[in-house]
Amino acid sequence: MLTGGEMHALVERMYPLCRSITGDGVRATLDAIGEHIPLDRHEVPTGTQVFDWTVPQEWNIRDAYIADADGKRVVDFRESNLHVVGYSVPVAATMTLAELRPHLHTLPDHPSWVPYRTSYYSPTWGFCLAQETLDALPDGEYEVRIDSTLADGHLSYGEHVVPGRVDDEVIVSCHVCHPSLANDNLAGIAVAVSLAQALENPYYTYRFLFMPGTIGAITWLARNRVERIRHGIVLACAGDRGDLTYKRSRRGAAEIDRVLEHALRDRPHRIADFSPYGYDERQFCSPGFNLGVGSLTRTPYAGYPEYHTSADNPDFISPSAMEDTLVVLREAFAILDRNRRYTNLSPYGEPQLGKRGLYDSLGGRSDAKQAQMAMLWVLNLADGDHDLLGIAQRSGLGFEAVAAAATALHDAGLVKE
Amino acid sequence: MLTGGEMHALVERMYPLCRSITGDGVRATLDAIGEHIPLDRHEVPTGTQVFDWTVPQEWNIRDAYIADADGKRVVDFRESNLHVVGYSVPVAATMTLAELRPHLHTLPDHPSWVPYRTSYYSPTWGFCLAQETLDALPDGEYEVRIDSTLADGHLSYGEHVVPGRVDDEVIVSCHVCHPSLANDNLAGIAVAVSLAQALENPYYTYRFLFMPGTIGAITWLARNRVERIRHGIVLACAGDRGDLTYKRSRRGAAEIDRVLEHALRDRPHRIADFSPYGYDERQFCSPGFNLGVGSLTRTPYAGYPEYHTSADNPDFISPSAMEDTLVVLREAFAILDRNRRYTNLSPYGEPQLGKRGLYDSLGGRSDAKQAQMAMLWVLNLADGDHDLLGIAQRSGLGFEAVAAAATALHDAGLVKE
Amino acid sequence: MLTGGEMHALVERMYPLCRSITGDGVRATLDAIGEHIPLDRHEVPTGTQVFDWTVPQEWNIRDAYIADADGKRVVDFRESNLHVVGYSVPVAATMTLAELRPHLHTLPDHPSWVPYRTSYYSPTWGFCLAQETLDALPDGEYEVRIDSTLADGHLSYGEHVVPGRVDDEVIVSCHVCHPSLANDNLAGIAVAVSLAQALENPYYTYRFLFMPGTIGAITWLARNRVERIRHGIVLACAGDRGDLTYKRSRRGAAEIDRVLEHALRDRPHRIADFSPYGYDERQFCSPGFNLGVGSLTRTPYAGYPEYHTSADNPDFISPSAMEDTLVVLREAFAILDRNRRYTNLSPYGEPQLGKRGLYDSLGGRSDAKQAQMAMLWVLNLADGDHDLLGIAQRSGLGFEAVAAAATALHDAGLVKE
Repeated sequence: MLTGGEMHALVERMYPLCRSITGDGVRATLDAIGEHIPLDRHEVPTGTQVFDWTVPQEWNIRDAYIADADGKRVVDFRESNLHVVGYSVPVAATMTLAELRPHLHTLPDHPSWVPYRTSYYSPTWGFCLAQETLDALPDGEYEVRIDSTLADGHLSYGEHVVPGRVDDEVIVSCHVCHPSLANDNLAGIAVAVSLAQALENPYYTYRFLFMPGTIGAITWLARNRVERIRHGIVLACAGDRGDLTYKRSRRGAAEIDRVLEHALRDRPHRIADFSPYGYDERQFCSPGFNLGVGSLTRTPYAGYPEYHTSADNPDFISPSAMEDTLVVLREAFAILDRNRRYTNLSPYGEPQLGKRGLYDSLGGRSDAKQAQMAMLWVLNLADGDHDLLGIAQRSGLGFEAVAAAATALHDAGLVKE
Repeated sequence: MLTGGEMHALVERMYPLCRSITGDGVRATLDAIGEHIPLDRHEVPTGTQVFDWTVPQEWNIRDAYIADADGKRVVDFRESNLHVVGYSVPVAATMTLAELRPHLHTLPDHPSWVPYRTSYYSPTWGFCLAQETLDALPDGEYEVRIDSTLADGHLSYGEHVVPGRVDDEVIVSCHVCHPSLANDNLAGIAVAVSLAQALENPYYTYRFLFMPGTIGAITWLARNRVERIRHGIVLACAGDRGDLTYKRSRRGAAEIDRVLEHALRDRPHRIADFSPYGYDERQFCSPGFNLGVGSLTRTPYAGYPEYHTSADNPDFISPSAMEDTLVVLREAFAILDRNRRYTNLSPYGEPQLGKRGLYDSLGGRSDAKQAQMAMLWVLNLADGDHDLLGIAQRSGLGFEAVAAAATALHDAGLVKE
Repeated sequence: MLTGGEMHALVERMYPLCRSITGDGVRATLDAIGEHIPLDRHEVPTGTQVFDWTVPQEWNIRDAYIADADGKRVVDFRESNLHVVGYSVPVAATMTLAELRPHLHTLPDHPSWVPYRTSYYSPTWGFCLAQETLDALPDGEYEVRIDSTLADGHLSYGEHVVPGRVDDEVIVSCHVCHPSLANDNLAGIAVAVSLAQALENPYYTYRFLFMPGTIGAITWLARNRVERIRHGIVLACAGDRGDLTYKRSRRGAAEIDRVLEHALRDRPHRIADFSPYGYDERQFCSPGFNLGVGSLTRTPYAGYPEYHTSADNPDFISPSAMEDTLVVLREAFAILDRNRRYTNLSPYGEPQLGKRGLYDSLGGRSDAKQAQMAMLWVLNLADGDHDLLGIAQRSGLGFEAVAAAATALHDAGLVKE
């Protein structure tokens, strides 16, 4: 299991790679992940129909720049891959600043930051740069060069599976299509890697998905049996210094929603209702699937000024924030993994716990121990309608106490699963 | 469509007419309405059985007064038709003030106002007058005269229908049985007339009912097919200067209730739960019908001191208040008329909006346009369970934006009705 | 019906008796109850299997003490039966204080109070004493004597039935197993006795159960037809000076829950959700039975420092508090007894109340009488889905007004039960 520092190092390792929805940057990112956890890697050919979409041509880029009359690169892809609009078609031309301007993207409100822009499905080209860089450019002629290729190829994604005792699956999904953006989503990838390493002999089968946003998720959904998916989390923005935010699934009260809300209840956090915008919960929660998949972030999607800019760099995220995200996910999955329904086999009156050594022999005291209270609650609500989490919530007891009581009662033959 | 001033003029035109639950005053009122919108007029004979009730004899009155020993009229029907208890039997007698007193009705708390009283089903007679008029009467003999007739005749009501594209109906019901009371309900009638004129090629068929309260509504319900009624509004007290009040149907969350609450949400207003008292929602919401019919007023039934007194005169209502009531009703009916359920034909993941020109080609920006958000919401919730109003409410978007998105998606073949 | 003073006298009469879950103290308590209301008494033999439990041996005690070297009793059962741990096995020994200490129970936080302790199912012996008594004991040898017997015998309980017009039953259950504790539960017994006397010709059959806690309730449940039980109250801690507390049944919104909450609404009170701890609601609300049985106390179970100590003596409870508990129970049972569903036989529009003398003949007034409003509410909601209590709650009217309206409408043939 990676420490906070190791997760941060993994982010820094992946940060310079030029990712997009296809191409070698994605493959290099999967290589980096594969250094920590084994990945099943998939390559889906250009042109493959996936529901309403078609896998696009593969985009690769070797170099790009804008050079002034002296041949000096004033905007240089080698400094940051954000400088080129994702999926830019090749260009090699000389043009005036005025001709160039429609192809330039800046953030006037943050003049030193470079924005992140793409144009996947509309063939065009462009550069992103700081407003202050643009402001400093004299009129005149510029050499413009994007050495990219758009050609038939593949869409790449990777999967890592932790087998469980049942085939029912929990998915953890991270997008791997954003170039040099640390919180969005290299931090999420790093936390997912560490989480995958931490899982030991789980009840559910956990499937970690590292794939491009939107088209990647749709491709995966089109090629796999979603019936196995019981629960899931889309993980992103896992490393900034804000409080955790859980965005509910479309169902609103799916088990994953109840679990995450329980796991977060004793710390500062935000709960957001589902909306069909954000990350790939959009796809998992489309009405045809309507899966119990929520989204965990720290500061949510588009909720911080650095979002989709060069300011979302490795300094923007912290090792301790990634560790904190990991702690909550581990606690949530521990609950999820253990959350089941029991049936009281002795439902008429209370069973005699004392003769089984489960109850204090000395009566009259008013300070019933938590363990005994947990057993009474489990017995009372073990009617097939309440899961252990529901019992914890109704009783106000911790999930662990309730789960331990269920185990003790199960061992005593008083409840069955 | 009548302006506020024209609605007020219509109120003044109808104000002097002596309406009751039957009689020529009702007919004259229907004449006045008919000057603006065509009416189907119905005459139901005395003695007709309508559910638990019987259409009563028709009441007409020509003159009434109390005259003092000098022959001077101290209470005079010619000054206000409120002076006579509605449905008073004829009387021609001379009696002392002491003998007369049991037949006199005043409002001690508002000594200059004349109350409105009726006695439809218990044969009696009486006069209503200001307390200060009564206080000024010397003892002595008075001539008492009510020149009324109670005879077999008819109960009158009128209907105006705006045909829709479907036979399903929305009713707008106004009572036309109150004599010189401006807010209750001449303002409601005037707003209904203007609303009827404003409707153009609606989806639903809109039926405007101008009929006496209680017995008129029960008569109408007994003679018509209520199965056609999908939604309805009982409109009254539409012209006073108070905030609008929507009283929910008995169902509490019928579509009409949701629509009115949505239409009112951005302005000061009150929402009241259903109660079996007030106007003819009592009949439409009786348990055998239980229709989705709410009631819109400004200050509600019996909620203002001038209620059922001579102070509810044309000065009590304002043209701008009637216009405001009309605006809300038009907005509400625009929502209702457009509110339908759609089904996403591409429910597995999102459809590719970009290739249909419905989505920005430049990605990465965080300021998704409202139109795109509305499309994503409609696609996500177009599962047959959510109507457009429900989508607007859940998304926080305006109804118009959601409806426009549904239209765009429908035109693109992505959803069906 | 016992007055507050008489209830207090009954508590004092029962206070010295040494009750336990079996034995002559229970029988003597049933004798005392039987002086006020006739009891059916039951004796269930030791060894009888009752669900998961077995009726234990019967425990009786004649004397017990700890005597010092001079033969002086330093702890004496004759002074308080709390001094002996309930179900102590016989002992006759001489031992040092050090040897004795593991058998001694005190309350260090309340050094002058004697705790109440039992050990029903784990054979042992012990004494309870004030911490200050223990602190004053010199080291040395002590004579220890408990003259008790544990032998096959019986478990005793009593029932008092007030026959109703229907066989459906309401149970009122009091535990009779606690020795000298006044609020817990002699006050509950005394209030139940007075309540039983006060019931006259009720609709339901009321069954009062006086039985040992847990094993008594389980025994009763194992030997009787619980299908008859419609509603019930476990009554305890009925005499302290705190506000009343109603603890909901496991169902949470059973009719008894709604009734008690309504009966308490206009006075200071607490409502607690069900928990599987406390008194015999634990058994009645076990998942196999899940009866509509709540619990009424003043200060709840274990909610006061004097709980299960010698400070819960007759001075701790007050006659007026017991009277107050009785008043609420009588009001609650009056509601419960009268709460039924009616069906409007004239559900299409309102029936004409006026022709039946049920409605004011003079119209136009805005101050409709409560009786008329109650009739309109009953007619509107008499659809089989609403009981009279539900109509009272939705209308905001008092239950009595609603019930009187239902009676009037029933007499007029407008509704049926």
